[in-house]
Amino acid sequence: MAMTPQSPSRAEGGFRTATAVERSDPDSVAKHPVGDTSQWMAAIAEGWDIAGNANGGYLLALTARAMSAAIGRPDPITVTAHYLAPGKPGPVSIAVEITKQGRTFGTATATLVGEDRPLLRVLGTFGELAENVGPQLVDLVPPPMPSPDQCIPVDATDTFPPPFMGKVELRLHPDDANFLRGNPSGHARMRGWFRLRNGEPTDTVALLCASDAFPPTVFNANLPVAWTPTIELTTHVRYRPEPGWLRCRFATHFVSGGFLEEDGEIWDDSGRLVAQSRQLALVPRN
Amino acid sequence: MAMTPQSPSRAEGGFRTATAVERSDPDSVAKHPVGDTSQWMAAIAEGWDIAGNANGGYLLALTARAMSAAIGRPDPITVTAHYLAPGKPGPVSIAVEITKQGRTFGTATATLVGEDRPLLRVLGTFGELAENVGPQLVDLVPPPMPSPDQCIPVDATDTFPPPFMGKVELRLHPDDANFLRGNPSGHARMRGWFRLRNGEPTDTVALLCASDAFPPTVFNANLPVAWTPTIELTTHVRYRPEPGWLRCRFATHFVSGGFLEEDGEIWDDSGRLVAQSRQLALVPRN
Repeated sequence: MAMTPQSPSRAEGGFRTATAVERSDPDSVAKHPVGDTSQWMAAIAEGWDIAGNANGGYLLALTARAMSAAIGRPDPITVTAHYLAPGKPGPVSIAVEITKQGRTFGTATATLVGEDRPLLRVLGTFGELAENVGPQLVDLVPPPMPSPDQCIPVDATDTFPPPFMGKVELRLHPDDANFLRGNPSGHARMRGWFRLRNGEPTDTVALLCASDAFPPTVFNANLPVAWTPTIELTTHVRYRPEPGWLRCRFATHFVSGGFLEEDGEIWDDSGRLVAQSRQLALVPRN
Repeated sequence: MAMTPQSPSRAEGGFRTATAVERSDPDSVAKHPVGDTSQWMAAIAEGWDIAGNANGGYLLALTARAMSAAIGRPDPITVTAHYLAPGKPGPVSIAVEITKQGRTFGTATATLVGEDRPLLRVLGTFGELAENVGPQLVDLVPPPMPSPDQCIPVDATDTFPPPFMGKVELRLHPDDANFLRGNPSGHARMRGWFRLRNGEPTDTVALLCASDAFPPTVFNANLPVAWTPTIELTTHVRYRPEPGWLRCRFATHFVSGGFLEEDGEIWDDSGRLVAQSRQLALVPRN
């Protein structure tokens, strides 16, 4: 869909602009058969960083845009990224190789390359999500939370928020927000609301960004852990989200062996689980 | 370690034999630099199947053996497989491409090919697991279960057990085993003990097999779901297991949109979480 220059998300450098990709090799139209590799140009946009390094969910979303276009299917069904090096703002290239094109899904690998080194290696299956198909069983509820205006905007604090928080809007559950003031809750958990800024809708690729947008759960544990570089992030997408805030819960149960996992659930405004995520992060040895 | 012909696991066609790989391209010694692709020969062994198709965890383990050898690091840290086609017994090839060799980890992709088509596409990071490094936080306990001899051997029933159950030993929690007699528990959960047969030790690659060895959790739900083909399986390994039975818990919280997730925890005899898994499976539309 063409966006006018007046579009807020474009004028403000919204998510869609920040994840735009363009085919850079000659065969720019055809959908790609199995085994073919396509090349894409993109840029890591300014302002999507945390202490200078682009947010991992944003990098995954950027790569997923190229994969989706190469495969010719709109929705990430399950996407796994292994993080190899930090990404800095500037031009990047994405190579996508298609492994399978089936009746309902297409599977590809991709490499995001910046400054001549691989930043992300990604394996993903894409398709077209449908509504209410098959049997249903949901035995968890969305996390109970005060409304967004009763939650704590991360950008309201004066020390923590990285530039990335100017690009997405996070409102933390009050019980999980005191780590911002040096008082972690004692539970390795982070609950809150997420949306893109300026009313830009969250599509299924933006859910990949949401799945890595919150401060690390371990910031709420009483552990000497100041940063947790992501080794791998996997996100499953179940539904296209309804417009509005997304209700998110991230939790860690195991910090051990030098690693931790962080499990995420993302629910939309209609009360449906739209995505699940799990990442493995390194716990730097003291 | 060399195994003698008298080794039970070899004589009985154990797991290590069933996941043996051999370099098939000329450069059979050097460790591989980034970007290099190596070729491996292997075979899908007889008897590791469920209704004729090889178990998905077994196929992942077979592929991981080649990845581990190609990368030159023993332990899978996080490995993701996308399942593209069912595997039948017979010769297969595995192509491994190394994306990164870092100080502590190596990352590669692999394709398992059988009968001229890709069966699995795998992305994995391998390393060498260490003991008790860094801060620890564990807020879940191993699933309480009766001892293995008070649990239900899957091979004791006369209808369900597929050939695969002759290769691994499963003992189900009595509360989760009645689906075998047509009485699902009503909870999409499967708890039980796992070990390889004939005293063969479970190494970290065998944990990949364990993470997909149990009957589907959804067999214990009151849903019209007869099979759940795996789309993707990710397993994180935290520790090398102590010898003995592994205590396993698998649970599903969301059957929706035509998919379900299955989360696994695997604990060793010392009470440590040794692996976590999550798979996304298709729920065939009725």
